[in-house]
Amino acid sequence: MPQLPPVKNVLYIMCDQLRRDYLSCYGHPHLHTPNIDRLAAAGVRFSRAYTQGTICGPSRMSAYTGRYVSSHQVAWNAVPLPLEELTLGDYLRPHGIRTALVGKTHATANVDALQRLAIDPDSQQAEIFNEVGFEAYARHDGIYPDSPLFDDKRDSAPYTHYLRDLGYDGANPWHDWANAGAAEDGEVLSGWHMRNAHLPARVQEQHSETVFTTDRAIDFIQEQGEQPWCLHLSYIKPHWPYIAPAPYHALYGHEHVLAPIRPTKASDHPVYTAFRQHEESQNFSRDEVRLNVIPTYMGLIKQVDDQLGRLFDLLQSTGRWDDTLIVFTSDHGDFLGDHFLGEKEFLLEPAVGVPLIVRDPRAAADATRGTVDERLAETIDALPTFLQALGITGAEHRLEGRSLIPLLHGHNPAWREYAISEYDYAFQAPARERLGQPIDRCRMTMVRSERWKYLAYDGFRAQLFDLDNDPQELNDLGADPAYAAVREQHAGYLFDWLRGLKRRTTISHQEVDRRAESFRYGEPETEKVVKIGVW
Amino acid sequence: MPQLPPVKNVLYIMCDQLRRDYLSCYGHPHLHTPNIDRLAAAGVRFSRAYTQGTICGPSRMSAYTGRYVSSHQVAWNAVPLPLEELTLGDYLRPHGIRTALVGKTHATANVDALQRLAIDPDSQQAEIFNEVGFEAYARHDGIYPDSPLFDDKRDSAPYTHYLRDLGYDGANPWHDWANAGAAEDGEVLSGWHMRNAHLPARVQEQHSETVFTTDRAIDFIQEQGEQPWCLHLSYIKPHWPYIAPAPYHALYGHEHVLAPIRPTKASDHPVYTAFRQHEESQNFSRDEVRLNVIPTYMGLIKQVDDQLGRLFDLLQSTGRWDDTLIVFTSDHGDFLGDHFLGEKEFLLEPAVGVPLIVRDPRAAADATRGTVDERLAETIDALPTFLQALGITGAEHRLEGRSLIPLLHGHNPAWREYAISEYDYAFQAPARERLGQPIDRCRMTMVRSERWKYLAYDGFRAQLFDLDNDPQELNDLGADPAYAAVREQHAGYLFDWLRGLKRRTTISHQEVDRRAESFRYGEPETEKVVKIGVW
Repeated sequence: MPQLPPVKNVLYIMCDQLRRDYLSCYGHPHLHTPNIDRLAAAGVRFSRAYTQGTICGPSRMSAYTGRYVSSHQVAWNAVPLPLEELTLGDYLRPHGIRTALVGKTHATANVDALQRLAIDPDSQQAEIFNEVGFEAYARHDGIYPDSPLFDDKRDSAPYTHYLRDLGYDGANPWHDWANAGAAEDGEVLSGWHMRNAHLPARVQEQHSETVFTTDRAIDFIQEQGEQPWCLHLSYIKPHWPYIAPAPYHALYGHEHVLAPIRPTKASDHPVYTAFRQHEESQNFSRDEVRLNVIPTYMGLIKQVDDQLGRLFDLLQSTGRWDDTLIVFTSDHGDFLGDHFLGEKEFLLEPAVGVPLIVRDPRAAADATRGTVDERLAETIDALPTFLQALGITGAEHRLEGRSLIPLLHGHNPAWREYAISEYDYAFQAPARERLGQPIDRCRMTMVRSERWKYLAYDGFRAQLFDLDNDPQELNDLGADPAYAAVREQHAGYLFDWLRGLKRRTTISHQEVDRRAESFRYGEPETEKVVKIGVW
Repeated sequence: MPQLPPVKNVLYIMCDQLRRDYLSCYGHPHLHTPNIDRLAAAGVRFSRAYTQGTICGPSRMSAYTGRYVSSHQVAWNAVPLPLEELTLGDYLRPHGIRTALVGKTHATANVDALQRLAIDPDSQQAEIFNEVGFEAYARHDGIYPDSPLFDDKRDSAPYTHYLRDLGYDGANPWHDWANAGAAEDGEVLSGWHMRNAHLPARVQEQHSETVFTTDRAIDFIQEQGEQPWCLHLSYIKPHWPYIAPAPYHALYGHEHVLAPIRPTKASDHPVYTAFRQHEESQNFSRDEVRLNVIPTYMGLIKQVDDQLGRLFDLLQSTGRWDDTLIVFTSDHGDFLGDHFLGEKEFLLEPAVGVPLIVRDPRAAADATRGTVDERLAETIDALPTFLQALGITGAEHRLEGRSLIPLLHGHNPAWREYAISEYDYAFQAPARERLGQPIDRCRMTMVRSERWKYLAYDGFRAQLFDLDNDPQELNDLGADPAYAAVREQHAGYLFDWLRGLKRRTTISHQEVDRRAESFRYGEPETEKVVKIGVW
């Protein structure tokens, strides 16, 4: 590829728990998202993008490090990222690019490692690590349960202060106003309970989380003016608690709820069967629950789209649309009762498929604007894309994703044969105990090739789905002898992937090359420092 | 296993570049090592022990972390260990056990990571990381070439000061006296040149590296008195430069040099062929070189054995023999011309096989004293053995080795089916360029099962040796169609190994269990902090 002038800014927009197919540009028949569609029309929409982990923490750490979950080690939520993993901010900061967070990261301070290094976890020195490399311009992780465990986080959260300053009172205004409705007698009805999903949230729409988050993003962009920036705009929604402020609570009705995707004869796979027994799966398997929750889920997405309209208008009116690389994506999906499952852990399409829209403002990307790219993309591709767009090199020994820039510019490079996603149910006692698996043998790994999805399990047979002929994954071919060769091929992909994980991250390829020179024998211009095996 | 009172101290003795078969207890017909044999008679000798990496840095970091090279990431010498890898000292220090180094570690300061953490690499805070967890009681890495790159290391090394104080003068007394001989006219003849290997070193024997190192170990043990300790006594010898002080330079002659192990028809494997072209391989393929070097190599080992006699006598006279777990091993071997190779990188037995003798002083180990254990042991087993002997638990999420204590105590636990070793020739420009491999596709991996050795390569066919019928690895079955099933079986082992590497090191199994409890539904005593999927 020819060398291009770099882009100036990066806007990395992420939703939380947004299914790929709940956007009109990805085909939802009732949920119209004209602003996200506007971005797709101005960029490239990846139709087969996958997250590397199906819950927040693992997925996000893959996004921020450009590495698979098995490499960055954040196997579950609230597992600390090793301090030595470099993140988006770590790569950009040395180049003078302010890299800020507005919204959620799900980052967990690596207190043990900090203490071992004699760094006070509450110190200024620790902050950049606690924030996984971001400047926490306005961190809003969104979930503040009524538990002493969360008191500190809630009381220091900017959104808590914002609500209190506006007169929303109580110990937990996040819960009591933004994530609760009210009974006719005024009783506070918690958004934690899905039976309350149809109620309007008690907060006014202009004070809700999605608007607050957008406001802070606009503040940051305006504050930066002509200075270069990277902003991670990371909405907590449409993640549960499923409750929306008026009018979004009532935009959609039962008639807009699509029929669930459910096999006539469900797979008897033991891990799938165990996941179906989770409380959220049991609840979402009831029509009553789906019909109460999904319209609100749609309303929450509609609100995000409206807010992105505000933001995109600002970018266009200030010239930022023309010098900013924009990515829109989600950290994972939501089963919403499909496959008789709730939540998102299991590695089927409703959870593992994510929207991914990328707009490169440069003229080199003009030819692909508005196109759909079917190549397999991964969440870990965002960071290499940003680095290439900004002209930053030298991280090949760490990065496991691939820059999408060549694709945006109409090139046709050799591309990946399969996408990978991982989930570890060691952290879910019910499934682990039902299945009788030891704590380090609870891994599920997806290998998704052009046609097939292969799901490998510790201790159980694989599952296999033919996505060409069975895009809804209704028919598990994992035990069918006719597909033994396909399974073997995908086990081979899994081997190649394991073998190819980057496992020499403390020195660069360039440094390896420099040192290798000292082994070049017989060239007088190179002095060998250590004289091995000389007679 | 029943709970036993822990041992009090640990003595972890390591030689450098000592072949397993160059000790009389491992069968050498001419080289008598009565003191190492004494330890074997009082403990268990593992006849099939393997190092995880065939050069110093990777092997040693596996020893100190209890983890495979692919996990700790030190793919070659002078590659820094990630700061978050816990080492022997890190595990023992919190339990009040002083963990000291006398001799070599080949540790390289992780300057980049320290600087990113705003820790001055030269500060007191950094020192424990620079020394990979050891208290550097007397670090002696042994190799101080005449290069400005090594000036600082040489001038700060305790052995340099020791020699200077004794009147050995010059800028580099390590080289000029301890690792050089003299011509008749007094000219200094460098030990770097193997043609000088037959000469006595210019240093007096009592001031040589092996005696100096033993002296410091005795100092440390005496200083500790009755306080618990762990000492890593790490001799630089018989590693090159191959030159020994009198009388050890002349104890063995050409008649004591065993015939080289060489196939009649050598394998045409491209990687093997490339390694045969290295300068040290070319030189060691000449009889003249072997006959000049090997007697000195034997003398250097004999000197280590004599010094260990001094040390063991001290332990026995002070009671330490009875409360100290002792391990004797080496970091890797030396081809010495076998297979037409020099040095040690390639994963054949002369390089990858190491001596491993373990003595547990407790009565529970009495029944196995003097026995030979043929089970597959690995260098990474030492650390878990120490931890179990000392009663330290909780590192299962990091450790990849297995405690040998049950074996020493006569139990018969389920044991590993294969041993693994790794080498990465990316760091050797000649081999890499001859083979035309990219920098991240230069990996060799050994899978050694009970009967077979399978060597996997990036980009080339595997090699296969039948160690039952061809213990000298003279006949490469890697391209023989008759052994396709054996190769497939071992590719399966490699897959299992890759899949089983520990990739969630920032939180313990216990912590996973604690968190998993919050997912146990319906048990009133456990409060779920986050209420997911509740109707």
